[in-house]
Amino acid sequence: MSELFDRHRETLKQAVEAAHTRGYWSPYPEMPSGKIYGETAKADGEAAFKAMLDAPFDLDQPTTGKRVGKEESPYGFKLGTTYPAVDVDQLVSAAKTAGKAWAQASVETRVGVCLEVLARINRQSFAMASAVMHTSGQAWMMAFQAGGPHAQDRGLEAVAYAYEEMSKIPGAVRWEKPQGKNPPAVLDKTFKVIPRGIGLVIGCATFPNWNSYSAYFADLATGNAVIVKPHPMAILPLALTVKITREVLAEQGFDPNVALLAPDEPDAPITKELVAHPEIGIIDFTGSRTFGDWIRQNAAGKLVYTEETGVNSVVALSTDSFKGMCGNIAFSLSLYSGQMCTAPQNVFVPRDGIETDEGHKSVDEVAEGIGKSLAKLLGDPDRAMGILGAVQNPDTLKRIEAARGFGRVVHESAPVTGDSVPEGARTATPLLVQLDAGDEAAYLEERFGPIAFVIAATDGPDAIRRAAGAAKTKGAITASIYSTDDGQLAAAEEAFAEAGAPLSENLTGQILVNQSAAFSDFHVSGANPAGTASLTDAAFVANRFRVATVRRQAA
Amino acid sequence: MSELFDRHRETLKQAVEAAHTRGYWSPYPEMPSGKIYGETAKADGEAAFKAMLDAPFDLDQPTTGKRVGKEESPYGFKLGTTYPAVDVDQLVSAAKTAGKAWAQASVETRVGVCLEVLARINRQSFAMASAVMHTSGQAWMMAFQAGGPHAQDRGLEAVAYAYEEMSKIPGAVRWEKPQGKNPPAVLDKTFKVIPRGIGLVIGCATFPNWNSYSAYFADLATGNAVIVKPHPMAILPLALTVKITREVLAEQGFDPNVALLAPDEPDAPITKELVAHPEIGIIDFTGSRTFGDWIRQNAAGKLVYTEETGVNSVVALSTDSFKGMCGNIAFSLSLYSGQMCTAPQNVFVPRDGIETDEGHKSVDEVAEGIGKSLAKLLGDPDRAMGILGAVQNPDTLKRIEAARGFGRVVHESAPVTGDSVPEGARTATPLLVQLDAGDEAAYLEERFGPIAFVIAATDGPDAIRRAAGAAKTKGAITASIYSTDDGQLAAAEEAFAEAGAPLSENLTGQILVNQSAAFSDFHVSGANPAGTASLTDAAFVANRFRVATVRRQAA
Repeated sequence: MSELFDRHRETLKQAVEAAHTRGYWSPYPEMPSGKIYGETAKADGEAAFKAMLDAPFDLDQPTTGKRVGKEESPYGFKLGTTYPAVDVDQLVSAAKTAGKAWAQASVETRVGVCLEVLARINRQSFAMASAVMHTSGQAWMMAFQAGGPHAQDRGLEAVAYAYEEMSKIPGAVRWEKPQGKNPPAVLDKTFKVIPRGIGLVIGCATFPNWNSYSAYFADLATGNAVIVKPHPMAILPLALTVKITREVLAEQGFDPNVALLAPDEPDAPITKELVAHPEIGIIDFTGSRTFGDWIRQNAAGKLVYTEETGVNSVVALSTDSFKGMCGNIAFSLSLYSGQMCTAPQNVFVPRDGIETDEGHKSVDEVAEGIGKSLAKLLGDPDRAMGILGAVQNPDTLKRIEAARGFGRVVHESAPVTGDSVPEGARTATPLLVQLDAGDEAAYLEERFGPIAFVIAATDGPDAIRRAAGAAKTKGAITASIYSTDDGQLAAAEEAFAEAGAPLSENLTGQILVNQSAAFSDFHVSGANPAGTASLTDAAFVANRFRVATVRRQAA
Repeated sequence: MSELFDRHRETLKQAVEAAHTRGYWSPYPEMPSGKIYGETAKADGEAAFKAMLDAPFDLDQPTTGKRVGKEESPYGFKLGTTYPAVDVDQLVSAAKTAGKAWAQASVETRVGVCLEVLARINRQSFAMASAVMHTSGQAWMMAFQAGGPHAQDRGLEAVAYAYEEMSKIPGAVRWEKPQGKNPPAVLDKTFKVIPRGIGLVIGCATFPNWNSYSAYFADLATGNAVIVKPHPMAILPLALTVKITREVLAEQGFDPNVALLAPDEPDAPITKELVAHPEIGIIDFTGSRTFGDWIRQNAAGKLVYTEETGVNSVVALSTDSFKGMCGNIAFSLSLYSGQMCTAPQNVFVPRDGIETDEGHKSVDEVAEGIGKSLAKLLGDPDRAMGILGAVQNPDTLKRIEAARGFGRVVHESAPVTGDSVPEGARTATPLLVQLDAGDEAAYLEERFGPIAFVIAATDGPDAIRRAAGAAKTKGAITASIYSTDDGQLAAAEEAFAEAGAPLSENLTGQILVNQSAAFSDFHVSGANPAGTASLTDAAFVANRFRVATVRRQAA
């Protein structure tokens, strides 16, 4: 039994249990508190981050000898960090060599290594927060949580599922088949978990860790060497992750090339070459439908898990808290400037308006209610920056500009100004545009970023039908409804279940539709075009390994 | 709770347990005994089969009104059974409509229906035996077992895995996240299993039931409507299966179109149209690599599970029972005329010969030993017919003819003659040809049917390397080794694990490498080109359903 496995046995046990009961649980504290992480942790993390700027990142892995790296912080500066450039064949070959001993290791040994890596990553959460903040543009607190403890939760969750699935395979069994009057037929059988192939994890720029850790740790735990291909604008968080992994691997006597980084630059991408490489057996991808389609076409026969484009909706039919509803929706649209895969884009409202605790509200009034909540929420620049963060990609600003022309602008998008905004930071408050249900060309496409629409539908059933229809045809990772009518809620539950979008009902408080809780929510359903897999179930891990059998005729 | 679920609860419980422990277990007796199945069962089954010949098969499902069916028994007669012709769009549309209520049913209700269907199929095992015999060409006893109880085991196994995976999803949970001094954030969540899409099960001609039941019952249990596309030469066994399923569905108040048959004829195939249909979400296929590749290219984005072409090997390095080894190999080559996906094709022997309990044996002597065992085993026509059965496809005879020219013929293939051979039966004993390891063009390709090669390799390690290499590059569902050297066995275990082929060691008795036991062996590893999935693990079922979530803010 592995020493690391023993060290983290209790955490693993609780994680497996949490994944079954699916209540709230997390072993990694989400509060960036000195009492938890150490009084100097924040200063140490910031210093560590600064030391990585304008410097070669220390990662001892196979390289061409050149260096790459063109990351720019959405807060207005170039990172200047460079990484060892890689040759795809060289990298894959190194992974293959290293993977042999990794595949031979026991389940407990591999799981122990993964749990230790997660524990060490957890201790680096402050340096990680800065790395995530200055690549994704997330505000610091979100970067700490989503790039730190919450991402670590995701990793642990995958390890827990993988451990449980692998534990089902008995090591050995005597198989004895009765043969009537004759002695039984007897075989001694042994079963061993074997990996499926080298894993390739393709990261995104907005949630480099959160969206990668499930796959990364699922691959590792199930015995696969893994190559991480970060987004060229968000390399640093995953470089840190791979570096820590390699340290633990080496300490435990493994070839560190079990985990490799494949950094590149926007004008010289290497992702397609990696996807097409015959030795890559498993691909996890977060990104656009277009590239997802390319992968599906070019990775025939490989396992492909994706999270892709989607159009998330809110259906507002009635509420006993108009303020709570408008405030909650406004927060959902604002959090990280709408750059979450879980952020709503379309708010459907019946054309005749809705009943609320403040009386009847017309579509215009609902739109204006959300608009006012946005203005109030984001009025103070400090608070606004803490919620919005920065805009990761300059193209998002172009999308905002284009969306202005789609209809009546209810809430204008503008940069945040004030002393708390770093010079050169790319910021934008949400644009809210009022449309009619007929304007499908405008709203039936993902408009990634702080862009949202209030859409007048014929009536309640039409609003549900359109929102669920968008989920089914365009994909959706979340859905939300406001209604005081149980019959309407039941109808919506059926429609969104069929569309494969998890539905949140009557969120008027602090919980946002955007938030997907580890060990509880099935993040991505795999049941509509927004993704082929949930990150949080047995199906996500069970096919990443196979079983080798030996049957020996009993003496 | 469902009444059918209650009725079969104990069987399910034992099946789940057996799939964990993986020892011997089966609830469906494999002996065609009157004491078990009823004294008139055999006569009744034969009468039922005869009544289906030269008659329209009674299957009340959507049809164009025309009838199809050109099955021919490999024992020399036309079945003359016809089935309702289908229009693909009409069929898919019927499945979609019927699937809605099926998806809404509880896990227990669906599992109960599946278990009842299996129990009723079990009672029809005699009629099924004749149907399988006169489509596949299997000898009667094999047709009874592989088309009856053993196929039913496979179906039950899939239901057990599906039940276990679905049972993991809690129906409801209160999620309570502490918020420091503030009251906790509380969500009431419900989770519901939803199907992935209409399932398409594409059967083969040699094992119409055995190779289809895992997928068929996995799809049904997980809430998917299913369309069965049988091989045009082996419709009847699956038509019976679908008919029984539809009866149980209707009795339980479901639209019987949850299970549909898609029969066709060789000159007007409809498989491609079904595969490409956008409403088909899951495809299970047993057949050739060529068509498997076509499916992969044309079903991008769909779940695809396959069992395809492979080249299975025996490595003979030493033995303490030369007779036992030769006899066992000869039986493996003969059983169902080598038409099993598990039958060996290549027997690798070191060029310098091997040590045995009968002294040193040259390659020639090993080949001749197997040849003599074949002659002895198949010398009596009655016994030969009982082992060989008939040759399903006339093309197999052409392959035998071609293989004769590849090298020295050690055992000639010939039709079985005698009073026990029905007139017009297509029979062939195994052809055994001796080759050199350099003759890769001859042996590194699947030569489906009673065709086998004894191949001289450089030495033991070369024999293992070539056999495992064939598995890795061409696919293999089984592998077998004879060696008295534990070091050699260990080396082989590692090589075949890496090649994803389950290895049987020193089989000299009644157990054949061909036999894959339900609840114990991982049939198809999914780890080499012979198939993308094992039929017998969580990965086979866990992705056939997804989870719909509702999160409601607690009052």
